[in-house]
Amino acid sequence: MKIEGKEWRTIWLREDGCSIGVIDQRRLPHVFCSSIIYSFEEACNAIQSMAVRGAPLIGVTGAYGLMLALQKDPSNVSLENAYKILLSSRPTAVNLAWALARVRNCVAKLPLEIRAEAAKKEAQQIAEEDVLMCKAIGDYGYLILKEIFHKSSIKESGRQLNILTHCNAGWLATVDWGTALAPIYKAHRSGMKVHVWVDETRPRNQGASLTSYELGCEGVPHTVVVDNAGGHLMQHGLVDVVIVGSDRTTRQGDVCNKIGTYLKAIAAYENKIPFYVALPSSTIDWSIADGIKEIPIEIRSESEILQINGKLNDGDIASVNLCPLNTKGFNPAFDVTPAKFISGLITERGISSASESGLMELYRK
Amino acid sequence: MKIEGKEWRTIWLREDGCSIGVIDQRRLPHVFCSSIIYSFEEACNAIQSMAVRGAPLIGVTGAYGLMLALQKDPSNVSLENAYKILLSSRPTAVNLAWALARVRNCVAKLPLEIRAEAAKKEAQQIAEEDVLMCKAIGDYGYLILKEIFHKSSIKESGRQLNILTHCNAGWLATVDWGTALAPIYKAHRSGMKVHVWVDETRPRNQGASLTSYELGCEGVPHTVVVDNAGGHLMQHGLVDVVIVGSDRTTRQGDVCNKIGTYLKAIAAYENKIPFYVALPSSTIDWSIADGIKEIPIEIRSESEILQINGKLNDGDIASVNLCPLNTKGFNPAFDVTPAKFISGLITERGISSASESGLMELYRK
Repeated sequence: MKIEGKEWRTIWLREDGCSIGVIDQRRLPHVFCSSIIYSFEEACNAIQSMAVRGAPLIGVTGAYGLMLALQKDPSNVSLENAYKILLSSRPTAVNLAWALARVRNCVAKLPLEIRAEAAKKEAQQIAEEDVLMCKAIGDYGYLILKEIFHKSSIKESGRQLNILTHCNAGWLATVDWGTALAPIYKAHRSGMKVHVWVDETRPRNQGASLTSYELGCEGVPHTVVVDNAGGHLMQHGLVDVVIVGSDRTTRQGDVCNKIGTYLKAIAAYENKIPFYVALPSSTIDWSIADGIKEIPIEIRSESEILQINGKLNDGDIASVNLCPLNTKGFNPAFDVTPAKFISGLITERGISSASESGLMELYRK
Repeated sequence: MKIEGKEWRTIWLREDGCSIGVIDQRRLPHVFCSSIIYSFEEACNAIQSMAVRGAPLIGVTGAYGLMLALQKDPSNVSLENAYKILLSSRPTAVNLAWALARVRNCVAKLPLEIRAEAAKKEAQQIAEEDVLMCKAIGDYGYLILKEIFHKSSIKESGRQLNILTHCNAGWLATVDWGTALAPIYKAHRSGMKVHVWVDETRPRNQGASLTSYELGCEGVPHTVVVDNAGGHLMQHGLVDVVIVGSDRTTRQGDVCNKIGTYLKAIAAYENKIPFYVALPSSTIDWSIADGIKEIPIEIRSESEILQINGKLNDGDIASVNLCPLNTKGFNPAFDVTPAKFISGLITERGISSASESGLMELYRK
């Protein structure tokens, strides 16, 4: 994606081959800056502090983190230690476990002296595959948007297709393109009139800060709404389709995504509005079926609710307190949307129903 | 209600008889202060700027506003002018129209020289009735909480009754006691173990700032959550009952309340959790049936989404920008929950189903 005319990815191997560049997402949208990761501990910290976030990007960061650990010390002890620490940095998204396992499996039986190089290649491969998967998701999702655009005679009426999205499942959540936003970029570039309702997505406001930033960079018309507004918009015919991402998808098609996704899904269901989830296969956890019972939900600090960051009028970035002193908060970061509320899953292999049979059919090929 | 040991109401006629005191709710929870309203224009401004807010309190403020206008000029022209301007200050809550009509009807046929005094008595009467209605709502609502507490053997398990509420329908939204919170205060004072999940209620955060403040003053255990979290809490059995207020209730039992209420109602319905609305009869609009089609929804400034107020660490109150420059926002302030999602209406006359027959039965008495 381009930012002020320059092509960027969210993460890249630097020229020295032993450090990683990332866009620091904690300071967006007010400050655009990148930072350098030199060690697996720093990679871990970047994931935990959400300097990098989004299930696919976390996976790639984890893979590079393992590479950094092996460059320093390629021993089994080092490998297992880095693997475990990186794995525990965030519990919900399954891409991290998937990417870490992939690098570990790739190097575990190799002689020590070639492990770091093999890990580098595998991490780069994971990053490149992520881009390709997101592009393919974009193409498949674009077909859905086109169908809705034409079927509901939105085109003839001259109005725009209204898409609602929650959180940020754009290129900032992946290496490039994004998942939920990739179809929107494809549609916009093809000339379709689209407009995006951006849920601000409390508590961390990834919608207000990241999705609106991305869409702005790409010139896609959009409007930020509070998370409370989606039901009202749907009741009044102002949403044609909802697309969100996924942090973990069970084999029966339950989707774990940013907290609040479930509320939008049941509102869409109630108002007969299609609700799609866009996901690369790296977010599928074939080992579990019931998302509500089986997916561990990360509980983050109450400070994310009680304080909020923003830009003061003088340009400084500050944190302000929102609640009375000593107020307690509870901050589950994700929720689970049962498959029955989901119109379809958009993957890099095509579109399937949110069901075991649907997913099996796609992945049997 | 008591604040630091002193008994307060949200609005009162001052000793001079020709000015009104109010708690300025825009500065809570960080600063507690009251301000004085000397004219109907100031009353109008207090309503529009949300120095006072909450359907019942807006009604009482409007009534006193009309008194202030008549004290200055009791003519028909003055009466009609003040009536119209106050009526247009906020469009959704029907209590304002109800209270203004009541004062106008009371004085319209009186000689000019006694109009101001009659308006004063009527406004005081409306305020006193509001307190009595809220107390009665508290008593009836407490019966519901007791029933849930005992029926689901929460008491035997030793755990607390978990109540979720949205926005602020407490004593700050009324003259005293509140609507949705009144039953909780009654339960807490009676010794029942209650805990309240407080939706922060974006964009103006009346939950995080006002409900948590009120509950804190009264010593009721509570935890603030983002508006996105309610569905997850319900899925996991962490909510026993939802109680909210109403800004307008149609004769068929549709409820218009703060934006986001609808999402909680459908989540409660989906998870088989009772969802009650507490309302004084002044919020019932008998003239309309279909809330989604017939209730005008106030659209407020996008600045309420794009910026947020809070307290800096140095104690200053500041507004911070949350979005990229030039981002657009859309800010509907209320939504409508269709009657089918509502377990019951708690009024000062008792509890009824959310239906025309239910309401008719209560009000035929």
